[in-house]
Amino acid sequence: MTTTTSRFLVQVQFGDCDPAGIVFFPNFARWMDASSLHFFRTCGVPRWHQIDDPVGVVGTPVLEVRIRFLQSATYGEELQVHTSIEDWQAKVFVHRHRVMRGETLICEADETRAFCIRNAEGQLKAAPIPAWLRERCQ
Amino acid sequence: MTTTTSRFLVQVQFGDCDPAGIVFFPNFARWMDASSLHFFRTCGVPRWHQIDDPVGVVGTPVLEVRIRFLQSATYGEELQVHTSIEDWQAKVFVHRHRVMRGETLICEADETRAFCIRNAEGQLKAAPIPAWLRERCQ
Amino acid sequence: MTTTTSRFLVQVQFGDCDPAGIVFFPNFARWMDASSLHFFRTCGVPRWHQIDDPVGVVGTPVLEVRIRFLQSATYGEELQVHTSIEDWQAKVFVHRHRVMRGETLICEADETRAFCIRNAEGQLKAAPIPAWLRERCQ
Amino acid sequence: MTTTTSRFLVQVQFGDCDPAGIVFFPNFARWMDASSLHFFRTCGVPRWHQIDDPVGVVGTPVLEVRIRFLQSATYGEELQVHTSIEDWQAKVFVHRHRVMRGETLICEADETRAFCIRNAEGQLKAAPIPAWLRERCQ
Repeated sequence: MTTTTSRFLVQVQFGDCDPAGIVFFPNFARWMDASSLHFFRTCGVPRWHQIDDPVGVVGTPVLEVRIRFLQSATYGEELQVHTSIEDWQAKVFVHRHRVMRGETLICEADETRAFCIRNAEGQLKAAPIPAWLRERCQ
Repeated sequence: MTTTTSRFLVQVQFGDCDPAGIVFFPNFARWMDASSLHFFRTCGVPRWHQIDDPVGVVGTPVLEVRIRFLQSATYGEELQVHTSIEDWQAKVFVHRHRVMRGETLICEADETRAFCIRNAEGQLKAAPIPAWLRERCQ
Repeated sequence: MTTTTSRFLVQVQFGDCDPAGIVFFPNFARWMDASSLHFFRTCGVPRWHQIDDPVGVVGTPVLEVRIRFLQSATYGEELQVHTSIEDWQAKVFVHRHRVMRGETLICEADETRAFCIRNAEGQLKAAPIPAWLRERCQ
Repeated sequence: MTTTTSRFLVQVQFGDCDPAGIVFFPNFARWMDASSLHFFRTCGVPRWHQIDDPVGVVGTPVLEVRIRFLQSATYGEELQVHTSIEDWQAKVFVHRHRVMRGETLICEADETRAFCIRNAEGQLKAAPIPAWLRERCQ
């Protein structure tokens, strides 16, 4: 079995960096979020609001994330976020994100996300991940 | 006639600043947006989604903004955004924001915003500002 | 032995939230970073650039962070980040951040940071945490 | 005389949008800042910290910006920021930024920036724009 790994390009901007001259670390979480959505586009999954099986998908909020920072990065650099899915459960999946500068690993994360719909009362609620979605991501 | 001026407090954070060590300027726009909402709370106007006259208010998107930057600011400083309304039109109003560090003017802006509802087709659309809202903001 | 727990106040803004209407999660990392700095201010530790023992302190970059998200939060809410230090090592320490909405735990994190100086070549380098700093944080 | 217009690509992300589902407007200022730097790279101007004529260039802080918002934008869209220089003065220049979605103008800005160095006391100070820099940007 092969699994998809998508690659999301980041051009680090001056405004992404802090007074120490390095990327302000919450920006890595922002890029990982963009890379998660990019992963599903790469697999041919429609945008959440365009899905009607199930009805009312709003996205995949993060339940838990663990990030290890190995190298700093700065503006003018080009990074790539390599994103895959390491585990599928009924309503939850686990992303692996590896942020690379060429061959150098900058940071990596394991990120657990729930597949969420908005229920009739307007609240976010985890729902079973449909089989069709999981199959597209193999 | 007196007009309300609200004051929104900002503690400038390390992560709000760029590698030159000063506030990355889009953050001033972010603080002005927060100060606009704080202005209406100060005047006793409910949050947009709690208003039902008219139905479907989603907020007050910016149509135009002009910002002059007079002094730089950095982390560890405490700023105050002084916000008022300089002009009312049928569907539009003009904010004046003055960002102060004590008695020193850091930057100031005139910001034109439309009072918007979401129409039946789901699109944003400017709507007449209700008289009750305008009266609360005097 | 008692240990300090600081409390950093966050007013969640409209612009901190995403199209699902909840806080965009990288903002929690941003608030935790601000709360880390606030913790040291609360303990009476000067700002990093004002310290001369050792010379050249630039800050405490994050080496690893693990965040668990238990509840969503939205704009108009007031949150408090409770921050403490759970472990001290020679050049490294571990923060515990607990983001609360009243009595409700929204998210919590363990965050490992290195105490860094800029060496003569201009590179970031972990350095021993001085005894005086550690004592102030008890 | 022809003048350079650079084009900076923006993929609008979910996290760039607010609870109304549209781009939170300070992000446009962020993209314009990135596009300003991209403009100079396109013209073959080195990064500010790599310039030694004059010594100590730190960047081009914004003195004034006027932005008009004509259309909203949302995530999943691809935008292009078209950036040029409309006016040169001794220590100051004026950018024109036009944010396009295909042929549709989303917003446009005139942005006045100072060419700044850090003087011996560590303060930001406007300095004459060197002739070589201006020539590269024709």
